[in-house]
Amino acid sequence: MSVEKWGVFEAVLTGPAAGNPFVDVQLSAQFSQGATTVNAPGFYDGDGTYKVRFMPSAEGEWSYKTRSNVDALDGQQGRFECTASMAGNHGPVRVRHQYHFGYEDGTSFFPFGTTCYAWAHQGDALEEQTLETLGTAGFNKLRMCVFPKDYIFNKNEPEYYPFAKSGDGWDFSRYDIDFFHHLEKRVAELGALGIEADIILFHPYDRWGFAKMALEEDYAYLRYVVTRLAAHRHVWWSMANEYDFMLEDKPMEVWDHFFQIVQENDPYDHLRSIHNGNVTMNYDHSKSSVTHVCVQNWDVKKMREWREAYGKPVIDDECEYEGNILRNWGNITARELVHRYWICIAYGGYAGHGETYEHPEDILWWSKGGVLYGESWPRLKFLRQIVEEGPVEGIEPFAGSFPWGRTAAGGRGGYSLIYFGEHQPKHWGNGLPPEGRYRADVVDTWNMTVKTLGVFEGQNPIELPGRPGLALRLRMVE
Amino acid sequence: MSVEKWGVFEAVLTGPAAGNPFVDVQLSAQFSQGATTVNAPGFYDGDGTYKVRFMPSAEGEWSYKTRSNVDALDGQQGRFECTASMAGNHGPVRVRHQYHFGYEDGTSFFPFGTTCYAWAHQGDALEEQTLETLGTAGFNKLRMCVFPKDYIFNKNEPEYYPFAKSGDGWDFSRYDIDFFHHLEKRVAELGALGIEADIILFHPYDRWGFAKMALEEDYAYLRYVVTRLAAHRHVWWSMANEYDFMLEDKPMEVWDHFFQIVQENDPYDHLRSIHNGNVTMNYDHSKSSVTHVCVQNWDVKKMREWREAYGKPVIDDECEYEGNILRNWGNITARELVHRYWICIAYGGYAGHGETYEHPEDILWWSKGGVLYGESWPRLKFLRQIVEEGPVEGIEPFAGSFPWGRTAAGGRGGYSLIYFGEHQPKHWGNGLPPEGRYRADVVDTWNMTVKTLGVFEGQNPIELPGRPGLALRLRMVE
Repeated sequence: MSVEKWGVFEAVLTGPAAGNPFVDVQLSAQFSQGATTVNAPGFYDGDGTYKVRFMPSAEGEWSYKTRSNVDALDGQQGRFECTASMAGNHGPVRVRHQYHFGYEDGTSFFPFGTTCYAWAHQGDALEEQTLETLGTAGFNKLRMCVFPKDYIFNKNEPEYYPFAKSGDGWDFSRYDIDFFHHLEKRVAELGALGIEADIILFHPYDRWGFAKMALEEDYAYLRYVVTRLAAHRHVWWSMANEYDFMLEDKPMEVWDHFFQIVQENDPYDHLRSIHNGNVTMNYDHSKSSVTHVCVQNWDVKKMREWREAYGKPVIDDECEYEGNILRNWGNITARELVHRYWICIAYGGYAGHGETYEHPEDILWWSKGGVLYGESWPRLKFLRQIVEEGPVEGIEPFAGSFPWGRTAAGGRGGYSLIYFGEHQPKHWGNGLPPEGRYRADVVDTWNMTVKTLGVFEGQNPIELPGRPGLALRLRMVE
Repeated sequence: MSVEKWGVFEAVLTGPAAGNPFVDVQLSAQFSQGATTVNAPGFYDGDGTYKVRFMPSAEGEWSYKTRSNVDALDGQQGRFECTASMAGNHGPVRVRHQYHFGYEDGTSFFPFGTTCYAWAHQGDALEEQTLETLGTAGFNKLRMCVFPKDYIFNKNEPEYYPFAKSGDGWDFSRYDIDFFHHLEKRVAELGALGIEADIILFHPYDRWGFAKMALEEDYAYLRYVVTRLAAHRHVWWSMANEYDFMLEDKPMEVWDHFFQIVQENDPYDHLRSIHNGNVTMNYDHSKSSVTHVCVQNWDVKKMREWREAYGKPVIDDECEYEGNILRNWGNITARELVHRYWICIAYGGYAGHGETYEHPEDILWWSKGGVLYGESWPRLKFLRQIVEEGPVEGIEPFAGSFPWGRTAAGGRGGYSLIYFGEHQPKHWGNGLPPEGRYRADVVDTWNMTVKTLGVFEGQNPIELPGRPGLALRLRMVE
């Protein structure tokens, strides 16, 4: 038996089906290779089946031994071979260079995420269409909820529910195995497309009671979902979408404890964050259990302030969505979203995409997936390519208020990316490096063209086309 | 002899020409009508000529009597008849309804200003062209400096200087009468066009020494210029352009004292303010001598914060200029300037225009005047018309963060003006008044069209074109 490095090894065991195995049975396994041991929790998968999943991070032979309070599951042993990772498998994403990300194998990862909150609750036809769209759209991260969603444009019942039915309600101590099999399948399919799954564990948009469980039920649910999904290398944890709209039921210390539970049940230390609703309600992302900053804020020119406030990578997941619905968070133009994305990038941060065009059947990408109708996504794909051609460590913002307070710009080493946006200078020389020779390219962020202007000495003003939506890229010539 | 209400009466006297009359001679006159008396300072106008100017604010007969430390100028008496003001003369502009302006006769005044800092130092041909442009451009206020300007694109010598020459330098105790005659002529010509003259008394862009006089010389200059110009009903006082770039020579208490001197020498209490350079260096406009707030700030979505901070009318004089020069304050697109102007207006404030396109002879409107090359000015003229069709008391911003934190909107009584900008909803109902019937118009801020959609009950969503740059105007139907 073998599994590739950062793949999912699964030990399957048989044990009791009686009682409530979700509550009654404790199971874990210790995975060992040489001096390395990793303790991975296991879970009940229904019908007397138990599983322990494990993501090996080193090639070679691994052995494991289970521990359980049930004899049939205790002391089971096995071995497997961890082979080299296959093409496209770079391991989990980690924080790197303080403000940026990278895969564990050292490959850069620049998040270009989109949002389909409830896509996995829409039935196979639409879910498969979403995957097909994601296959070519150019995004490498997806924000998605575990729970189904009740909100404007989101009134359809899901096919699966996370908990077992109990009379007219739910038995929050028993998980629905079909639900989780389905969820895992969709998560795995994202992985196969090279898309990180930013798993949202709680959200307030609920009519089933999943947002208002007792805290002990929340904790148990968290342990269960994290145990099931953590061995997928491409999983990120988001404690919530808009946690601040749930503070009445789950005060701040509960969110802190959620972080703790996730951390304790995830042996791989996947990325962890949380997402605010109100722009004034940023979570204190400086807490040590938070790996990176997620904010919802339209005011992207604050990117440098967020970086400084928390000292971690910043993703403005929701800088408003391209669309035309009645709510302001979902009706900016494609040009404006592309503009905001560029500002985030040039100021050393990252942003998130979403699309919210009115649809005759209420199939809005931001929540249900489907197809993309907008005009921003190809421009963001183009921007991703620009960023991937830049410094492997990521772009650091240029400091100071002049001239970089009004022109979003950053760089690293001999590389500068200066995004002019609503500014349209005919010449530019402000703030450029005093020494060296630079190849200058004009990037048209909307028309997706790159035109080389020539090689310049840094301080000589460079003539530009003098129209909006342009960026200047400078790369030092040896 | 007669003069219209709010016109300029001028008493001309003959006195000593020897010594330094600017320093040696004190002159004023007391103007009386019934129980009203106004003390107006006088000034030396060269060649033994002295003048006392007075702006009467009530019809009927006025008498005056001079006072001086020189016998020939002391105790002179006269009378004149103040007639009704002529068409187009509404008196000086005052603060009204706390956050807005109005002429003294009760007519609304909504400032739509532009900027030609050094236009009066460019020679007759260009100055007359500027006046011709202003005659149709639609602006009703102009920011202009007393002193000439030395700065990028501004290296030409002026024809006149404010002080008498003294060897290679200046005698700061003697004013150049030709300079002031010329300045007054240009100021009067603005008045004839119905344009308020926002007179900038100091600025840092100087190679002649006018920005670095001794404080007593500053004070004497201030008294002289205010005495000469104050009787023009359309004069506003701006202590400085970018006062914070002069703090080394003129610390904060000096600026406070400048306000005091202006106030003491202006019997008509014209509007007084001051303009910052750095966005973090707003003067404390809550001081009682400051009548209204001027800021330089690109971040116009802060308009409501400035209103709240100072409790006075706010003009963002410099929300960056339409143009294409290298400096960021002078290279935003016409669309962006129109966008920022609309945001200021809908949030209950005002903005300022300027134009800075590169020019083969360095004739940039923002400093020298000439002709307008841009595309924003006709859209601002259109916006002025929209505002003048609105509530006579001015537009108050709608309160609260939702939905008005992201959509600039305000109104008064049964009137609402909702500017969507980068937002493009297909339907809008958020935040509309719950009661009443409203005639809805869609305003295209760029194409300058107004299209009536019909009459709606406030809370029913209104269908909109779903493209950017639109505003919705709602007016209650009786």
